[in-house]
Amino acid sequence: MKPISEIAKQIGIDTHYIESYGKYKAKLEPELMEQWQHKPDGKLVLVTAINPTPSGEGKTLTSIGLAQSLHALGTRAIAALREPSLGPCFGMKGGATGSGQAQIVPADDINLHFTGDIHAISSAHNLLAAMIDNHMYHGNELRIDPKRMTWKRTVDMNDRSLRNIVTGLGSGNGDVRESGYLITSASEVMAILCLSEHMTDLKERLARIMIGYSYDGTPVTASELKAVEGMAILLRDAIKPNLVQTLEGTPVILHGGPFANIAHGCSSVIGTKTALKLADVVVTEAGFGAELGAEKFFDIKCRQSGLTPSAAVLVVTVKALKYNGQHAETGQPTDPTEVDAMATLRQGMANLHRHIRNLQSFGVPVMVAINHFTGDTEQELELIQAECSHLGVPAAISRVWAEGSAGGEAMARQLLDLLETAPQAFTPLYENECSLTNKIERIITSIYGGEGAVYSPAALRTLEQLEAEGFGHLPVCMAKTPYSFTDQPRLLGAPTGFTIQVSRVSLSAGAGFVVVETGNTMTMPGLPRVPAAERMQIDANGHIDGLF
Amino acid sequence: MKPISEIAKQIGIDTHYIESYGKYKAKLEPELMEQWQHKPDGKLVLVTAINPTPSGEGKTLTSIGLAQSLHALGTRAIAALREPSLGPCFGMKGGATGSGQAQIVPADDINLHFTGDIHAISSAHNLLAAMIDNHMYHGNELRIDPKRMTWKRTVDMNDRSLRNIVTGLGSGNGDVRESGYLITSASEVMAILCLSEHMTDLKERLARIMIGYSYDGTPVTASELKAVEGMAILLRDAIKPNLVQTLEGTPVILHGGPFANIAHGCSSVIGTKTALKLADVVVTEAGFGAELGAEKFFDIKCRQSGLTPSAAVLVVTVKALKYNGQHAETGQPTDPTEVDAMATLRQGMANLHRHIRNLQSFGVPVMVAINHFTGDTEQELELIQAECSHLGVPAAISRVWAEGSAGGEAMARQLLDLLETAPQAFTPLYENECSLTNKIERIITSIYGGEGAVYSPAALRTLEQLEAEGFGHLPVCMAKTPYSFTDQPRLLGAPTGFTIQVSRVSLSAGAGFVVVETGNTMTMPGLPRVPAAERMQIDANGHIDGLF
Repeated sequence: MKPISEIAKQIGIDTHYIESYGKYKAKLEPELMEQWQHKPDGKLVLVTAINPTPSGEGKTLTSIGLAQSLHALGTRAIAALREPSLGPCFGMKGGATGSGQAQIVPADDINLHFTGDIHAISSAHNLLAAMIDNHMYHGNELRIDPKRMTWKRTVDMNDRSLRNIVTGLGSGNGDVRESGYLITSASEVMAILCLSEHMTDLKERLARIMIGYSYDGTPVTASELKAVEGMAILLRDAIKPNLVQTLEGTPVILHGGPFANIAHGCSSVIGTKTALKLADVVVTEAGFGAELGAEKFFDIKCRQSGLTPSAAVLVVTVKALKYNGQHAETGQPTDPTEVDAMATLRQGMANLHRHIRNLQSFGVPVMVAINHFTGDTEQELELIQAECSHLGVPAAISRVWAEGSAGGEAMARQLLDLLETAPQAFTPLYENECSLTNKIERIITSIYGGEGAVYSPAALRTLEQLEAEGFGHLPVCMAKTPYSFTDQPRLLGAPTGFTIQVSRVSLSAGAGFVVVETGNTMTMPGLPRVPAAERMQIDANGHIDGLF
Repeated sequence: MKPISEIAKQIGIDTHYIESYGKYKAKLEPELMEQWQHKPDGKLVLVTAINPTPSGEGKTLTSIGLAQSLHALGTRAIAALREPSLGPCFGMKGGATGSGQAQIVPADDINLHFTGDIHAISSAHNLLAAMIDNHMYHGNELRIDPKRMTWKRTVDMNDRSLRNIVTGLGSGNGDVRESGYLITSASEVMAILCLSEHMTDLKERLARIMIGYSYDGTPVTASELKAVEGMAILLRDAIKPNLVQTLEGTPVILHGGPFANIAHGCSSVIGTKTALKLADVVVTEAGFGAELGAEKFFDIKCRQSGLTPSAAVLVVTVKALKYNGQHAETGQPTDPTEVDAMATLRQGMANLHRHIRNLQSFGVPVMVAINHFTGDTEQELELIQAECSHLGVPAAISRVWAEGSAGGEAMARQLLDLLETAPQAFTPLYENECSLTNKIERIITSIYGGEGAVYSPAALRTLEQLEAEGFGHLPVCMAKTPYSFTDQPRLLGAPTGFTIQVSRVSLSAGAGFVVVETGNTMTMPGLPRVPAAERMQIDANGHIDGLF
């Protein structure tokens, strides 16, 4: 690892504008953006994926590797990515800093408390919660209806027992009422931080947070509870983007990590815009497959911030194409030994087709990155390349896990070529002026390939109410299974003729979107029977083993 | 402010051994202690106080000012103090970084998230909580009795609604049971961190944490839940002491901040021992008045760690002496305009006497620091000085709030003289071998001046059980009102003929003490009607106003 001050210097940042957290992490001061506001922006590249298998297809890995490869070719490149959440590290999976030869370092630090952003978000969220209950305890002047108080508490921990709780028991401890915890990445404060342009915007968004309704049905906001300044004070440092590096010394801006279901799943706007001032090519990613991640990246993050993506890199794997191929017909997995591997792969291509067509429909040039796994055969890789060629889409095999930048050179060259030559005409899917139901329908028919939505009575009522209250101009944020274009995790490939069941609609007024839930959305994970925490170790000198 | 690397250099620390958090905060690497273990220790000075008024008498202020004054006189001095908790900053009081000309800086940073220690402690505590509930959810192999599970959750926030809660409601979310939250400074993990000598000791202490009992009455520990490594990993950086400075550039080690009621209320052993290697005089403090703070400092912190205090500085104020004088007779406040100020002050001296005698009984040389307030008259100050002179105890007026080091010069000179000349023979109050009830009685009769203890049946049962389980050798940690020598907050001065009601006894096996509660101990504060959070502001450039 190089000292972080050296990485900063490499991209033209004076040490005056960085605040080091140890030798290998730093925060970038907001003055940097003010100073550089007239500098031209670099090009923004989104890394997304086809519908994944449950183990994931390597979007973060590919993003890191792609930035490394661009860097190795002499391009001024930065990866602008999400910072990992601490809670899940102790549960099922390891960290979220890549793997093999495409990693962000120092990985232990980043996967643990990093620079404290997520703890700061938890504190800000929980300060509002405490101030709401305290307001009600001291006379409830705003006449908040406890049955319609929707603001929960948050913690960065997988803790299923906190999903639904009752608070305020005992004498002198406030009113008894139902509540619950979200994991911090699901907090609206996280989404707000990630969509804010600067401190003033952050405060305006925090002020708009709707925590519930009064007895007479009026919305109650964080502003009315006088919680905004305290929350913003707690977020003073968290709003500053973090600078780290890859194993190969490529600069990485890691900032923010909102959930990809009830939030938009993208790293921060401030981080992305800072990176665009510092580099010629900025590689970023969005959570889940492209029908969720890319759609939200385009329709929420780019719409709100005015960002224009110059290209999309669609990550595919042989295993995900086969997975989509196997399940496509029946919705049930077939024994893989009984089926012809190539036929299954071919059948899965329908998923790839639809994602490519979707990305192109936003006016964004597309290329395919085939993330290579050890067991993949030449025949399989060639089939995917042939298919892409047939569709007129450039494709490259990425071996960044095994080889680092060398394994991504072909991919990087193709991307640079695409950025140079492909015509660009980015437009979001819908206009702000469309009604909320229109926006939902557009996403389902144009992106998912379905027939339309079926709304629960409660969802319809909320949609009507939100239109009436003046929130109809907001984009929608779809919360859906990431495994399928439909709302059924087993309906893989490229299904048609389906409808999407909209179960629940809610407002994230501060973040600036309307959340549309299909089915039950998990906002607080549990720990597995043997949590990852049981397999970790730390020695007398503080060296950690098994964290990720 | 000087760059923190310069402060480090000033006390002989190579930059190799510091990890900067921004320009003005740093953590000290454990290798530093290994390297310096054969260096002789400096002298350790405890700052404590008489029984305070509810607004406090300025122990932290005096500690900071005293270190500044020693430093100004050319003595190699360091203050080793507690780090402030974030939650209370948004409630009633401001920060805990001193005030006037005796402050620790950067105060905003220190009062906010600082270097993340307290968040790390919350995470470690809550990981254990999640792992306990998860263990019970997945079959409860250890047969933990949910009714006897005592490990709560924690958050660094004043939130009364979380004092008593019910968790695990709803399908698939574990078992429904009663639980609650502590503020993080009340977490046993905080006490453990503050009493640990190094990472190995920390892990051994975490392993001993008792989270409750199984159905057959066997104690269940964090070790059996396999939570120790994960917790220790979360505390990897929190265990390292933090280096900051005063307004005058005096080095300060701020590390740990346990509650002074159900815990021992002292900054970390690691921080104190590090400071002793770096300085000739180390100024530290203990929470509350001397009958609680100093007693626990001597009988818990010094006993466990082998530290030897060289002197105690007893902080008195005219207002606290008068407060003790007014309430002394009736237990009710008298209208101050109706009484003779000097007579009241004279009456309050009984409180000072008893604290001096107590400190002397530990074999520790004592001096008195009269913390000067603007309204104090010459006559009042002279009376206190005359009284101390009569008792043969050196006394100095401290004006560090108004004048910084200049205002503490007399106090510093007297302390240096005391350290030079006074005979030292520190011994704790009781032997490990005394029974738990013996220890409690000794504290009540020798220190509080009372007749003995009256135990609730539950407390007696727990004491017997703890003796039977082999915990009788541990020191006791008294949780009592800080306003009186008795357990009645209104019985001021130096009462006699009272007994102490012991309501509840519990074990902090990892911290290594038995908590003895008198009355109800508050471990989760609430917010006041108008929380401090409502009066704070942050501007577009991130400048904060009104945090402390």
